[in-house]
Amino acid sequence: MPESKKDALLRLLKGLGSIGDVEGSAIVTRDGLLIASDLPKDIDAETFAAMSATMVGAAETAIAELKKGTVERVIAEGRDSKLITKGAGPNAVLVSMVTQDANLGLILVEMGKTADNIRKEMG
Amino acid sequence: MPESKKDALLRLLKGLGSIGDVEGSAIVTRDGLLIASDLPKDIDAETFAAMSATMVGAAETAIAELKKGTVERVIAEGRDSKLITKGAGPNAVLVSMVTQDANLGLILVEMGKTADNIRKEMG
Repeated sequence: MPESKKDALLRLLKGLGSIGDVEGSAIVTRDGLLIASDLPKDIDAETFAAMSATMVGAAETAIAELKKGTVERVIAEGRDSKLITKGAGPNAVLVSMVTQDANLGLILVEMGKTADNIRKEMG
Repeated sequence: MPESKKDALLRLLKGLGSIGDVEGSAIVTRDGLLIASDLPKDIDAETFAAMSATMVGAAETAIAELKKGTVERVIAEGRDSKLITKGAGPNAVLVSMVTQDANLGLILVEMGKTADNIRKEMG
């Protein structure tokens, strides 16, 4: 039996989780619906998805007001962790939660590759 | 005649603009009202303020959902520029627009100092 699209997306998220310092990831639509998630159990994935999409949407409106093109990435830094979003095709956004002291360079490269794979998978 | 609070805040924003790669900055309330701005003339400062505050608010809700404390900083990367926010006391947020290839390290340090000075000025 071939791998379902859902399983393929979950595999991509788990791959991202295996690079270290990534505590969890999700794929959400740009209007805030959850597509797939690999998040710690104590997190409400639906609320997380909605708020991540709102953050990206507001960033896009602010950047658009600056006449500076589309938003490639948003990094929100909390006291204990960072939240990073990366566009994954026209309708989806990849969101990862990483530790505060994570190596951002490595994670941003891996998130870029994962976002490309999500785009292909969702084609 | 002593410097007015408004003039002092504008002086802080202009100081930030003098370090290079910073195209403009503003101080906004957390609910989206403009306090002071040093932005290029072709930008609608009110819309910019409202959207910046929305972005920070959504980031805070997402981070709160992760049980990861408050938001220290948000960086939104567009194709041609970056938008950086930094909390400046309980009610205000400093927002700067920087060039895409800016030296983020230097700018983040200077924004931290400016946010501290805004906090003191608004006391």
